[in-house]
Amino acid sequence: MPNAQTLPQTATDSDVAWRSINAIRFLSIDAVERANSGHPGAPMGLAPTAYALWQHVLKHAPGTPDWADRDRVVLSAGHASMLLYSMLHLTGYDLPMDEIKDFRQWDSKTPGHPEYGLTAGVEATTGPLGQGLANAVGFALAEKILANTFNRPGHEIVNHKTFAICSDGDMMEGVAAEAASLAGTLQLGKLVVIYDDNQISIEGDTDKAFREDVAARFEAYGFHIIDPVDGNDINGIIDALNAADDVPEKPTLVTVQSVIGYGSPNLAGTGAVHGKALGGDEVELTRAQLGWEYEPFEIPTDVYEHMQAAIERGQALSDEWHRRFDAYKGEHPELAERFLQDLNGSLPEGWDDQLNRLIAEHDSPIATRAVSGEALHAITPSLPRLIGGSADLAESNNTEVEGRGSFSPEMLDGRNLHFGVREHGMGAISNGMALHGGVIPYAATFLIFSDYMRPAIRVGALSHAPCIWIFTHDSIGLGEDGPTHQPISQLMGLRMIPNLTVIRPADASETFEAWRIAVENRTGPTALILTRQNLPQLTSIGGQSFARGGVQRGAYVIADVSRDPEVILIGTGSETQLALGAALKLQEQGVAARAVSMPSWELFQQQPEEYRESVLPSSIRARVSVEAGTTIGWERFTGFDGATIGIDRYGASAPGDTVMANLGFTVENVVETARDLIG
Amino acid sequence: MPNAQTLPQTATDSDVAWRSINAIRFLSIDAVERANSGHPGAPMGLAPTAYALWQHVLKHAPGTPDWADRDRVVLSAGHASMLLYSMLHLTGYDLPMDEIKDFRQWDSKTPGHPEYGLTAGVEATTGPLGQGLANAVGFALAEKILANTFNRPGHEIVNHKTFAICSDGDMMEGVAAEAASLAGTLQLGKLVVIYDDNQISIEGDTDKAFREDVAARFEAYGFHIIDPVDGNDINGIIDALNAADDVPEKPTLVTVQSVIGYGSPNLAGTGAVHGKALGGDEVELTRAQLGWEYEPFEIPTDVYEHMQAAIERGQALSDEWHRRFDAYKGEHPELAERFLQDLNGSLPEGWDDQLNRLIAEHDSPIATRAVSGEALHAITPSLPRLIGGSADLAESNNTEVEGRGSFSPEMLDGRNLHFGVREHGMGAISNGMALHGGVIPYAATFLIFSDYMRPAIRVGALSHAPCIWIFTHDSIGLGEDGPTHQPISQLMGLRMIPNLTVIRPADASETFEAWRIAVENRTGPTALILTRQNLPQLTSIGGQSFARGGVQRGAYVIADVSRDPEVILIGTGSETQLALGAALKLQEQGVAARAVSMPSWELFQQQPEEYRESVLPSSIRARVSVEAGTTIGWERFTGFDGATIGIDRYGASAPGDTVMANLGFTVENVVETARDLIG
Repeated sequence: MPNAQTLPQTATDSDVAWRSINAIRFLSIDAVERANSGHPGAPMGLAPTAYALWQHVLKHAPGTPDWADRDRVVLSAGHASMLLYSMLHLTGYDLPMDEIKDFRQWDSKTPGHPEYGLTAGVEATTGPLGQGLANAVGFALAEKILANTFNRPGHEIVNHKTFAICSDGDMMEGVAAEAASLAGTLQLGKLVVIYDDNQISIEGDTDKAFREDVAARFEAYGFHIIDPVDGNDINGIIDALNAADDVPEKPTLVTVQSVIGYGSPNLAGTGAVHGKALGGDEVELTRAQLGWEYEPFEIPTDVYEHMQAAIERGQALSDEWHRRFDAYKGEHPELAERFLQDLNGSLPEGWDDQLNRLIAEHDSPIATRAVSGEALHAITPSLPRLIGGSADLAESNNTEVEGRGSFSPEMLDGRNLHFGVREHGMGAISNGMALHGGVIPYAATFLIFSDYMRPAIRVGALSHAPCIWIFTHDSIGLGEDGPTHQPISQLMGLRMIPNLTVIRPADASETFEAWRIAVENRTGPTALILTRQNLPQLTSIGGQSFARGGVQRGAYVIADVSRDPEVILIGTGSETQLALGAALKLQEQGVAARAVSMPSWELFQQQPEEYRESVLPSSIRARVSVEAGTTIGWERFTGFDGATIGIDRYGASAPGDTVMANLGFTVENVVETARDLIG
Repeated sequence: MPNAQTLPQTATDSDVAWRSINAIRFLSIDAVERANSGHPGAPMGLAPTAYALWQHVLKHAPGTPDWADRDRVVLSAGHASMLLYSMLHLTGYDLPMDEIKDFRQWDSKTPGHPEYGLTAGVEATTGPLGQGLANAVGFALAEKILANTFNRPGHEIVNHKTFAICSDGDMMEGVAAEAASLAGTLQLGKLVVIYDDNQISIEGDTDKAFREDVAARFEAYGFHIIDPVDGNDINGIIDALNAADDVPEKPTLVTVQSVIGYGSPNLAGTGAVHGKALGGDEVELTRAQLGWEYEPFEIPTDVYEHMQAAIERGQALSDEWHRRFDAYKGEHPELAERFLQDLNGSLPEGWDDQLNRLIAEHDSPIATRAVSGEALHAITPSLPRLIGGSADLAESNNTEVEGRGSFSPEMLDGRNLHFGVREHGMGAISNGMALHGGVIPYAATFLIFSDYMRPAIRVGALSHAPCIWIFTHDSIGLGEDGPTHQPISQLMGLRMIPNLTVIRPADASETFEAWRIAVENRTGPTALILTRQNLPQLTSIGGQSFARGGVQRGAYVIADVSRDPEVILIGTGSETQLALGAALKLQEQGVAARAVSMPSWELFQQQPEEYRESVLPSSIRARVSVEAGTTIGWERFTGFDGATIGIDRYGASAPGDTVMANLGFTVENVVETARDLIG
C-alpha cells in the first residue's frame, strides 16, 4: 500500500494545493457521512488526480459550462460522484454547498450517480460501469468529426479533449473494451483515459478476478501508453496528462496508481472504504491523519480562492475562443451559422422536403428496412450532421449512405461509421456523440442484438440523449437464421424503457414518418423497428391513408365501417397487414370490424383521452392484437375480453413465411380469433 | 489474399485428407445453396482447421456423444453452423444426410445456428457473437473444478479440453473480452481459443473497425500465444492445436489465417461470401477450382470411411475411460457415485433438509437478499456442486459462502467464484458451466445490471441451461444509488424471456421456497429477484401461511374474507406487504378485500385453470396490482376495470423509504386506489 500514511512532498505547488486536495477529500467524506450512503474511497484516492486535471490541465469555464469548445470530463466511475461534485463546487460551477449537503437526497442536484442535464458540469450520466469510457470515445469521435467539418485553415474552432476517469471495474467491462478498441482503430488522439489503478474492487483485491496487464491490452488497441504515475504525485500526474499531446495520432492511457480511501488510517487500501460511509470515528482519525482541522463542509477561504480562479481562467479562454469564432464567422459565415445551428440542435428549414417527396412513392411491397435506407439517403444531404452506422450489419440494416464514404483515420470526411461487431460499445459511443452535440447519431443492428446494447439504450434515454436506433430483422419473419436471431421479448422490452420512443412502422409511408419523428425528437432516443421481409403498402391492400398524422399520434384507424365497430383488430409493423386483411374479410362477412395501425405505444399514450377514445372506444371490448412478439403487455389494449395473437415461445429456423404461418400469423387465424370473440 | 487459388501441398496426410476437407466445404456450399440461405464463407475457409481438429486432435466419440470426459468444441461463430453440421455428419454423429439437406428448414436438426439439445454433438447454442467464447470459458472452468473435485492420485477421470472456434466478430464483442480476461486470470490451461483471422467481417475489410493486435491483447490477458498458422496448413494447424499442452498453466490462443470463401474464384476473401449462397454459377466455378467432381450432397465412400474412423477411435477412447472409471469406482466408490449423480443432474436425497428447517425461522424483518444468502449457506453442504459467485458484488448480493474459499489458480478447491465486473461474461460463462454439467452454477449482480447480461440470460433459457440468477437491489427501494441503479423495466423484461422462471419472493419463507424451486428446475434458468431493504414476514403482519405450496403455484391468497371478494390486491416481492396491509385495512373498513401474493408469473400460468380461477376469480374485476416496476404487462391480471400501481418513469436518488413513498408505494395509496375502483 504505497504512500498510504504520508503526504508526499513532490508538489511544486504551494501548500494551498494540498489543502485543496484535502478539501476535495473531506467534502466527499463529509457528504457521504451525512447521507450515510455513498462511495468515499475513490474520491479520497483520486483527489490529487482530479486537482491536477481540473486545475492544471482542463480547458473549462465554470461560468459558461456549455461553451462549445470546452474539454469534456466523463467520470466513468460514476460511483465516485462526490469527486465530481466536489470539483464542480470548488471550481465555481453552479453547485452550491447546500446541494453538496443534500447529497443523495430527494430533488437535489447531487444524486448518487451523476446525471446529465441535472447538474451543470456533468457531461454524462454514469454509474453503470464501462459505459462512461465508451461515452468518452463518442465525445472524442464527435470532436474529430466536427473539427473535420468546421475547422478551416487558420481557424481551429473545434479543438478540445475528452478525459475519461475509469476504475478497475470500468476496465473489466466488455463495453469499455469494445469502445477502446474502436478508439484505437479510429486514432482518436484527443481522448485521454485515466485509469485509477487502485488494485481494489468491491470483492477485495483485484487479483481475484483481474490479473491482466491493462496497459499492454490498451497498447494492443493502439493506445499511447504513459508510464504509471503515483496517485499523489501532482506534477507527475500533470505531466502524464499533458503527455497525451506527444502522440497526437493515438488515444492515451494514463495509469494512476492511487490508494483507495487515502488518508483513512484503518480503511485505506481496502474494499471496505469503497461504498460505505467511513463512520464518525474513522472520519476523525482521517482528519487527524491528514491534518484537516476544519468542520464538516467547511472550506478554507484560500482554498476557495485558489480553486475558483478557474472561473476567471475559463472566462478568458472562452472569451478568446469567441473572438476567434467571430473571426471565423467573418470569413466563413455560412459554416459558422451551420456550426451554431448544429450545436444548438435546431433543424434547418426544409430538412425533410425530400421525405415529403418520397412519402407516397411506393405502391409495391418493400421491406421497411429498405425504406429506412431510402429515408437516410433522402435526409442526409440537407442534414449532414446525421451521422452513424451499424455494428457490422450495414448492408442488412440499410444504413450505409452511398457517396458519404467511410470514416477512418485516412478519410476523416467519411460519414458512414463502422462500429464493428460491438453493439454495446456502439450504443454508449452514440450516446457520447449525442451528448457532445453537433451531430445526430444513428446506430443499427438486428433487433435481437438490441439486448446487447440495452444498458446503453437505457442510460441514453435517462440522459435524454437523442440517438436514433435502427433495429431491423424485427421478428420471426427474418426466417432461416432461427431462434437465436428471432426477437420475442425485445420489442415490448424497449417499450418499457422510459423516455424511449419506439416506432414500428407498417409500410413505406409509416417508415418515412417514423424517420421524421425520430429526427425531430431531440429530448430522447427513438427506436425504429424494421422488417427484413417485404411488406405491402397499406393503401394498396385496402387501408385508408393517414400515415402522416397517424404515425405522429401513435395509432390510427386504417379500415372502418360506418356503424360502431363490433370488433377492433390492432396490428403493428409487419402484422398490420394481417389486422387490415382480417378486418376487410370480416367486413365482407358482414361483421363491423375496425383495423387499427399502432406503430407507437408511446406516441399513442401521449394523445388526449378524446383521441385515444376515438380510435379505441372503451365500449368496444372485442379486440384482437396481432404482433409477432411476446403477448405480455398487449392486455393493456385488449383487456380480459379481447385476445392477443403473439409469440410466447422461441421461434424456429425456416423460411420466414413458414415460421409466420406455423406460429399463427395468418389472416385466417386473425379472422377466426375475432369471430371467436364476438361469438 | 494468401493461398486463395491453389491447394497447398503441406499435408503429409493422403489425398483423402484433402478430399475430406473439400467434402466439408461442399456439404456446406450445397446445403446453403439448397436453402438459399446461410453462411458458406467461414466453413469454406475453416474446413482444414475443422478437419485437423476433429480428425487429429479432438478426443470425441461420435457414437456416445454424451461421454463425460470428451473434449468440447464450441462453435462461437455460430453462423458457420454448416461447418459443424458437416463435421458431425462426416465423423458419424447421428445427423443423417437428410438433415443436412433440410438445413434451415422447419423441424430439422440443422437450424440456421446450432442449438444445444436439438442436435447430438452440438455443445452450445451459438450465433449471438462473443458468447460462445465465454461459454467455452465456462466449460473449461467446470472441467477444472470437477477435476479438482473428483480426480485422485492415479485416477484422472476428468481431463478434457475445450476448443472455441471464433471469428473476427467474436473477438470484437465485449463479452468475449470479459471472459478471456477471466480465463487468463484463472489460468484455464485446457481452453484453446481458435481465432479465425480471415480479415473480413460483414461490412468488408476488418481494417475499417478492428485494427487492434488480437494476439497482443490475449497475451495481456495471460494467454499462451501460438504463432499464426496458415489456414490451409493441416500439419501446422495440428501442431498449433497440440502446442496448447506446452504451457499447461495458460489458456491458448491459436490464430488461423484463413481465407473466407476459399476456393470460390470470384468471392474468396470478400465479404460477399460471408452470409449468402454462392449462386449456381459460382458453385460450379468453385467445383472446378477445387477439382470437386461430385454431385451436390454426394460424398465419396473413401471420405466417409476415412472420417467415420472417428467412431471406432472414439469408442476405444470412451471404453478405455470407462475401464479407468471402474477402477476409480473400486477405490473411491462414494466419489464415483457422486460423480455420476452430479453429471446426470439428479439431486441427492435430503438436499433440502436444511431449507425445511429454516423455512419458518424468521419473524422479524429481513432483506430477501440476506435470506437468499442463508439459503445458500444451508444448501451447499449437501449440494456442493452448487457453485457460483457475483460480478464483484458478493457482499451486496449475499452470495459468498463462508468456509468455501475463493476459487483461484492458487486455491483450486475454493468454491466461491469471482467473476469481476463482467456481468455479460458471467452470464455466458455460467451457461457454459451448466451445459458442461456436473455443477449447478449461480451468478449474481444487481437487478439493474441484468440488462448487461440479458443476451446470455436469453441464450441460456433457449438452451435449457439451468443456471440460477440472483438479482438483488430489485427496485427503487434500493434508494440512494438513484435512477442509474434503480430497475424499472428489468423485472417485467425478464418475465418475457421464454423458458426463464422468474421468482420475486415477498419474505423469508417465500425466498427459501424460491431457492428450492430454482435448484429443482433442471430444464431452464431461474431468476431470483431480491430486495436490498428489509421486509416484514407476511405471517407477522396478518398474512396466511401458505409459502410452500403457494410459491410453487406462482400465486396464492394471503388474506381473504369469508364471502366473495369485492376487490383483489395483488403484490409481488417487497410490495406484497402493501397489498396485504391494504387488504387488511379495507377489511377493517368493511370491504371484502382479498390479498394475493404472486411471486412468479410463470409458475402461476402453468397452473390448471381451476386453481388460477380460485385465486383470481374471473368474475371479480376490481383488482389492483402493486409492483415497483413498469406497469406494462400487469393488465394481464387487472384488465380494463382494475388499476396498476407501478412506475413508468425513472426513479430518484434518495433514501429508499422516501422514494417508495413519493412514487406511491404506500398502504394508503393502495387502499385509495382500491376504493376508487369499487366506487
